[in-house]
Amino acid sequence: MNNNELDLKHYDVRTDLALEAKEMAEGAGGGPIPGVLSDVTEDNGISITRLHVQNEQGSQAIGKIIGQYVTLEVPGLRSGDTGLQDRVATHLAKEFEAFLERLSINKQSRVLIVGLGNWNVTPDALGPLVVENVMVTRHFFELMPDQVAPGYRSVSAVAPGVLGITGIESSEIVHGIVEQSKPDLVIAIDALASKALERVNTTIQIADTGIHPGSGIGNKRKGLTTDILGVPVIAIGVPTVVYASTIVNNAFQMMTEHLEQQRGDTDKIFGLMNKMGDNERLMLVKEVLNPMGHDLLVTPKEVDQFIEDIANIIASGLNAALHEAVDTDNVAAYTH
Amino acid sequence: MNNNELDLKHYDVRTDLALEAKEMAEGAGGGPIPGVLSDVTEDNGISITRLHVQNEQGSQAIGKIIGQYVTLEVPGLRSGDTGLQDRVATHLAKEFEAFLERLSINKQSRVLIVGLGNWNVTPDALGPLVVENVMVTRHFFELMPDQVAPGYRSVSAVAPGVLGITGIESSEIVHGIVEQSKPDLVIAIDALASKALERVNTTIQIADTGIHPGSGIGNKRKGLTTDILGVPVIAIGVPTVVYASTIVNNAFQMMTEHLEQQRGDTDKIFGLMNKMGDNERLMLVKEVLNPMGHDLLVTPKEVDQFIEDIANIIASGLNAALHEAVDTDNVAAYTH
Amino acid sequence: MNNNELDLKHYDVRTDLALEAKEMAEGAGGGPIPGVLSDVTEDNGISITRLHVQNEQGSQAIGKIIGQYVTLEVPGLRSGDTGLQDRVATHLAKEFEAFLERLSINKQSRVLIVGLGNWNVTPDALGPLVVENVMVTRHFFELMPDQVAPGYRSVSAVAPGVLGITGIESSEIVHGIVEQSKPDLVIAIDALASKALERVNTTIQIADTGIHPGSGIGNKRKGLTTDILGVPVIAIGVPTVVYASTIVNNAFQMMTEHLEQQRGDTDKIFGLMNKMGDNERLMLVKEVLNPMGHDLLVTPKEVDQFIEDIANIIASGLNAALHEAVDTDNVAAYTH
Amino acid sequence: MNNNELDLKHYDVRTDLALEAKEMAEGAGGGPIPGVLSDVTEDNGISITRLHVQNEQGSQAIGKIIGQYVTLEVPGLRSGDTGLQDRVATHLAKEFEAFLERLSINKQSRVLIVGLGNWNVTPDALGPLVVENVMVTRHFFELMPDQVAPGYRSVSAVAPGVLGITGIESSEIVHGIVEQSKPDLVIAIDALASKALERVNTTIQIADTGIHPGSGIGNKRKGLTTDILGVPVIAIGVPTVVYASTIVNNAFQMMTEHLEQQRGDTDKIFGLMNKMGDNERLMLVKEVLNPMGHDLLVTPKEVDQFIEDIANIIASGLNAALHEAVDTDNVAAYTH
Repeated sequence: MNNNELDLKHYDVRTDLALEAKEMAEGAGGGPIPGVLSDVTEDNGISITRLHVQNEQGSQAIGKIIGQYVTLEVPGLRSGDTGLQDRVATHLAKEFEAFLERLSINKQSRVLIVGLGNWNVTPDALGPLVVENVMVTRHFFELMPDQVAPGYRSVSAVAPGVLGITGIESSEIVHGIVEQSKPDLVIAIDALASKALERVNTTIQIADTGIHPGSGIGNKRKGLTTDILGVPVIAIGVPTVVYASTIVNNAFQMMTEHLEQQRGDTDKIFGLMNKMGDNERLMLVKEVLNPMGHDLLVTPKEVDQFIEDIANIIASGLNAALHEAVDTDNVAAYTH
Repeated sequence: MNNNELDLKHYDVRTDLALEAKEMAEGAGGGPIPGVLSDVTEDNGISITRLHVQNEQGSQAIGKIIGQYVTLEVPGLRSGDTGLQDRVATHLAKEFEAFLERLSINKQSRVLIVGLGNWNVTPDALGPLVVENVMVTRHFFELMPDQVAPGYRSVSAVAPGVLGITGIESSEIVHGIVEQSKPDLVIAIDALASKALERVNTTIQIADTGIHPGSGIGNKRKGLTTDILGVPVIAIGVPTVVYASTIVNNAFQMMTEHLEQQRGDTDKIFGLMNKMGDNERLMLVKEVLNPMGHDLLVTPKEVDQFIEDIANIIASGLNAALHEAVDTDNVAAYTH
Repeated sequence: MNNNELDLKHYDVRTDLALEAKEMAEGAGGGPIPGVLSDVTEDNGISITRLHVQNEQGSQAIGKIIGQYVTLEVPGLRSGDTGLQDRVATHLAKEFEAFLERLSINKQSRVLIVGLGNWNVTPDALGPLVVENVMVTRHFFELMPDQVAPGYRSVSAVAPGVLGITGIESSEIVHGIVEQSKPDLVIAIDALASKALERVNTTIQIADTGIHPGSGIGNKRKGLTTDILGVPVIAIGVPTVVYASTIVNNAFQMMTEHLEQQRGDTDKIFGLMNKMGDNERLMLVKEVLNPMGHDLLVTPKEVDQFIEDIANIIASGLNAALHEAVDTDNVAAYTH
Repeated sequence: MNNNELDLKHYDVRTDLALEAKEMAEGAGGGPIPGVLSDVTEDNGISITRLHVQNEQGSQAIGKIIGQYVTLEVPGLRSGDTGLQDRVATHLAKEFEAFLERLSINKQSRVLIVGLGNWNVTPDALGPLVVENVMVTRHFFELMPDQVAPGYRSVSAVAPGVLGITGIESSEIVHGIVEQSKPDLVIAIDALASKALERVNTTIQIADTGIHPGSGIGNKRKGLTTDILGVPVIAIGVPTVVYASTIVNNAFQMMTEHLEQQRGDTDKIFGLMNKMGDNERLMLVKEVLNPMGHDLLVTPKEVDQFIEDIANIIASGLNAALHEAVDTDNVAAYTH
C-alpha cells in the first residue's frame, strides 16, 4: 500500500500524533488543509479533536496515513483527580464505540488487545499495563460458552514484548497469535512520541490506521495493519516521551511567537534562525545536539504514576466500549 | 500419545519433580524401580540426579512421562552466595548441553525460549524473569546475518502470559509464535510445585518431555509438547510453591520415620494413621483442609529475592549452553 | 513493666493475634477465661471480635499483654471485591475511633504513623505500603497553619526500614523521630504471623498495647511502646505469614476433631499423638522439621495483590478515623 | 552561616553540580576564577575533576558553598558495561577515602548513610536504592561487638522518605536518628538536577559541604549540614534530571558556538538573542515555557536501568572506602 511508504523520515516531525502533524502543516501553510477535516468539542477540561485524513492529498500534507484520528487532550490528567479520570474513560468509551460502528464491528465480534512495549522501561510500559488491567473473557467463551452472561463479547489480550528482549518482531508474534486465536478486530496500545512536553501523559489518540513502521517509541520496524494481520486494527496511543531536540526546536518557535506579540521585530532578535523553515532549523538543532550524545528521548520525572493512571483509564474505557454489560457510568469498577 | 493421558489426578502426588515422584514410589515399594534408571553425582553442595524413565513400566510406577530428567539440588542456594550461583549455572550449562546432543540439536539450530507464568505473581514469575535476562540474537540473524560473530546461534524468547490475563491458552500463543518464527527447538521455563518445602527455590529440573497438562503452578490445561508444536521441547522447571496439604502430609511421614528411629513403636504413637497408605492419608488431609479454604499454594516469605537469583542462574546457564562463544567459566557476565 | 517480660517463647504460640491466643487457651481449658472479656458482632461477611484482656490473670492465660484488642475477620477479602473492601475500611475506621476515644486522643492531637517492615519482601511490606498510601498533613500545619481546612489534624508517616538493611533498631529510629516531631500518638502498622493459613491477608487486628519484642514477622527485638516512646501506641497488624510447623501442628488438631466427629475413636487412629498436649506436639513437629531446614515462614502465592489491597483498606480506614473531614461513607477516595 | 544564604534563585543556574557552575562562570567571564582551584585527571573513559572553592570570592563567583567537590564523569556509563562500572566504583572509593582523610575520619569512626529521595519516583530513588544495596554493620557492633571481624567499621543506613509522603522534613527525621544512633559522620546520597542531558546518570559528585536548601530534585527546604546535625556531612550526588528550560537554554548556547565556528557571523543568525546574557536569556526561555505548564523536570526514558546501575556503583564504592577488609579490587562482590 502506498501510504505505508510515506517517507516519515523526510518530514522528521518526530510526532506520532496526527493532531500535531496537522498543527505543524497549518503553521507552515496557514489556513485549513485540503483533504483533512477536523472538529473539536470541549467538555470541562477534556478537549476532543476528531480528524479525518480523507485522501492522498491530505495524507501528503500532514504526513499521516488516510483514516480517522480522534485525540482526547486533558491537561489536568497529571493531577491524579479520580473524578476526571472516570470522565475521560467515559469519553474514551464513547469515541471508541464510534470507531467500532464505522468498522461494522458487531456485538459478537471477537477482539484481541495487543499491548506493545517493554514492561521494564516505565514510559514504554503503557501497552503491557493496559493488558494487565483490561477484562479478558475469551477463555470463558472457549471453555464454557453456555455460561457467559449476556452483554459480554470475547476479548483476549497479549503483551508481545519488544524486539530487544524477544528477538522477534512484535508484528510476527501478533500475526502468529491472530492466526491461532482468530479475532475479528485487533486493538493495539502503544506509547508514542510527541513534539510537545505538555501533551505527554495527558493525551490519548485513537486511530483506525493500525500501527505503521516508524511510529511509536520502540523499534517497530514492521507494522500492525489490516494488510499484515487480515483484520481491522484500531490503534490507541499515548505520548509518553519527547525528543530533546524537539523540545529545543519547539521552544524556538514558541519564543518567536511570544516575541512577535510583545516586541514586533523578531528578525532583529533571532536573525537568520527566524528565516529558516521549521525542518531546516530542526536539522540544525539535531546537528548540534546529536554528536554530543544527548538527543535522548526524555520523559517527565513522575512518569511512574502518570503511566499507571492513564493505563487504567484506557482499560476502563475499553471495558465499557467492548461489553454492553459494562456501563459507561461506572467503568472504573471493572479494572483492577 | 498414551503417556499424555496418564491420570496424574489419580496419583495426586502434587509434585512436578520426577525425583520426588521416584522417591515416593521407592518409599512405597522399597528398592529400585524397573524401567527407571538413576545416578547421582555430587560437587561440593550441588547434587545432580540423572533419571531415565525408560519405558511404560517405569512411567506407570512413578507417574511421569517416558524421558530424561536431570535435577540439580543446591540446598545452599537461598543464602545468596554468588560464587555458588556461578557454579550452579556452569553445571546447568553442561547438563543442558547433554540434552542438546541427545536431541541432535546442532550449533546452527534455532532456539525459542518460552517463559511461562505471570510476571505479577512473584512465585509464578520465574519464566518471564528468565526471558528478560537471557541473551537474544534472532533479530541480528534476521536483520544482518553477515555481521553476527561466530559462536552464536539464533535465540529468541517470549513470555506468553497466563490464561487469566490473556484469555488465550499459553500453548495456543506459543503455537502461533512457533509457526511464524520457525525455531528448531523450544525451551519452556516454568515454576513448579514441589512436595518438600526445602526443595523450593533450591532445585532445578531439566526434562526432554516438554510441559504436560496438569504440571506447573498455573492453569496450563494444554501442554507444550513435540506433538503440539512440531519441534522438540525441553522443559526447565524450578519448584517455587508447595501445597499446604502436602506440607502436612509430608510432615506425617517424616514424623513417623523420626519416631521409628527413636522409639521403635510408631503404631502406638500414630495409631491407624500409620497404617494408611500415603495416598489415602493425603486424601484425608485434604478432606480436612479443603473445606476450610486453606489448601493454598504457599511459598517462602523471601520469595522475591530467591526467584531473581534463580532466574539469573538459568539465564546464565542457557547463554553458555546455547552459544559456543559464551564460556561456561564466566557465564554470569552475559546476563543483566 | 511486668507484662513486657511475659515469656512468649514458653508459650510458643507462634501467633501474633490475641484472638488466636484466646482460642488456643479455650481449646485447652474449655469454657471462658477469667480476666478476658470478648464479644463478637457480624456484618455480612465481616466478623468483629472485641477482646479485653483485663488483668494479669487474663494476660497469663492467653499470653498477651493487658489491653484492648479488636479483630476484623473477612474471609472474602482475598476475592478482590472492591465493595467489600470499602465496607471493611469503614468498619476499621469506626473501631479505630473507639480506640482514640478510650485513649482521650482529641481532634487536634497530632499523629505519627509508623510502617514497620521491609518494602522489598512482599509479605513484610504492609507497613511501608500503608505509609505510601495514607494522607499526610503535618507539613501543611507546619508551613501554612492558617490555610489548613477545618476537619483535619496533623498526621505524619514514616517507614523506618528493618534492622538488616539499616543497622539500627526500628525502635531507635522511631524514638528519634518522635523526639523531633513530637506527635501525641503513634500508630504502628506491622505484618504478623498467624497460626491459621485462612486468616492470612483476611484479618486486621487493632490493639492499644503497642508493639512488643518478639511479635511480628521481622526481628523487632525492641518494642514500640508507651514506655519507650512516651506517647500512646496503637498497633494495627495483619497476619501475612504462617510458620510451616504451625500449619502441620494445626492440621493434627483439626484432623483429630474431624475424626472424632466421624468415627469416635481417635485414640486408635492417632495413638499417643492424641494424648500429647498442643505444646508438646508442636515441639515434636518442630524437632522433626527444623533440622531439615524447612520450618520456613510461608505465605500464599498470590501475596503481591493481597498485600496491596489490605494496605489500601488500612490507609482508607485511618484517613476516615483521623480526619473529621474525611467521610466514612467514601473513605477510598482519599487514598492513592 | 553566610554561605547558607547564598541566593541560589538569583543565579538560577538550575544545576547542582559545582563543575557546571564553574563552567558557566568561566564561560561568562573567560579564564580562571579567583578562589576556585581545579585539576582534572583522566583514566580511560573516566574523567575526575577535583574542584576546591577556597574562599568567599570563589563561592560568590560560581554560586557554590566553600568546600571540596570531586566529580567523576563517565560518558560510557549508560552502556551497561560491568567492567567499566567496577572501575568507576574503585575510583569512587579512592576519591572518597581522600575526603575521609581530610575530615580526619578514622577507621573506627561510625558512619550513617542517608538515602534521600522517593523510592516510588524512579529518578528520585537513587538514595533509597543505595541504602538497600550498601553493607550495614552497626547492629553487629551493637549486638555482638566481640565477634565483628577486623577491618570493618560501624555503618548504618536510612531512607527518610520525602516530605510529601512523610509530612516531616527529611532533615528533622535524620536529626532524630543522628541523636539516637550517634554516628561520627553522615553521608547523604541524593539525586540532582544537571544543566546538561549528557551528564544525567553518567556523573557522580562528592562534596564535603553537606546538602543545602534548594539543592537536589525534591523539596529539601532544610538542609543536612554540620551546623544542623553536629557531625560532618559528605554529600554524594548523581544528576538524574534536567529542567526542560535548561535543555532549551543550553541548546541556544551550543548552537551559537557551533555556528560561530562554522560561519562566523552569529549576530546575523541569532540577532539580539545572542547579545543577551545567559541569565537574561534563561529568564526569557522560562517566561515562554512556564505558563504553558511544561517546564518539567525530565529524565531519559531508560532511567529505570540507569538508576539501578549507578546505585550499585555508589554502594560498591562506599563499601570499599568504609571498610578496610573490603578490597577496592573487587568491590562489586559485597553489594546485592
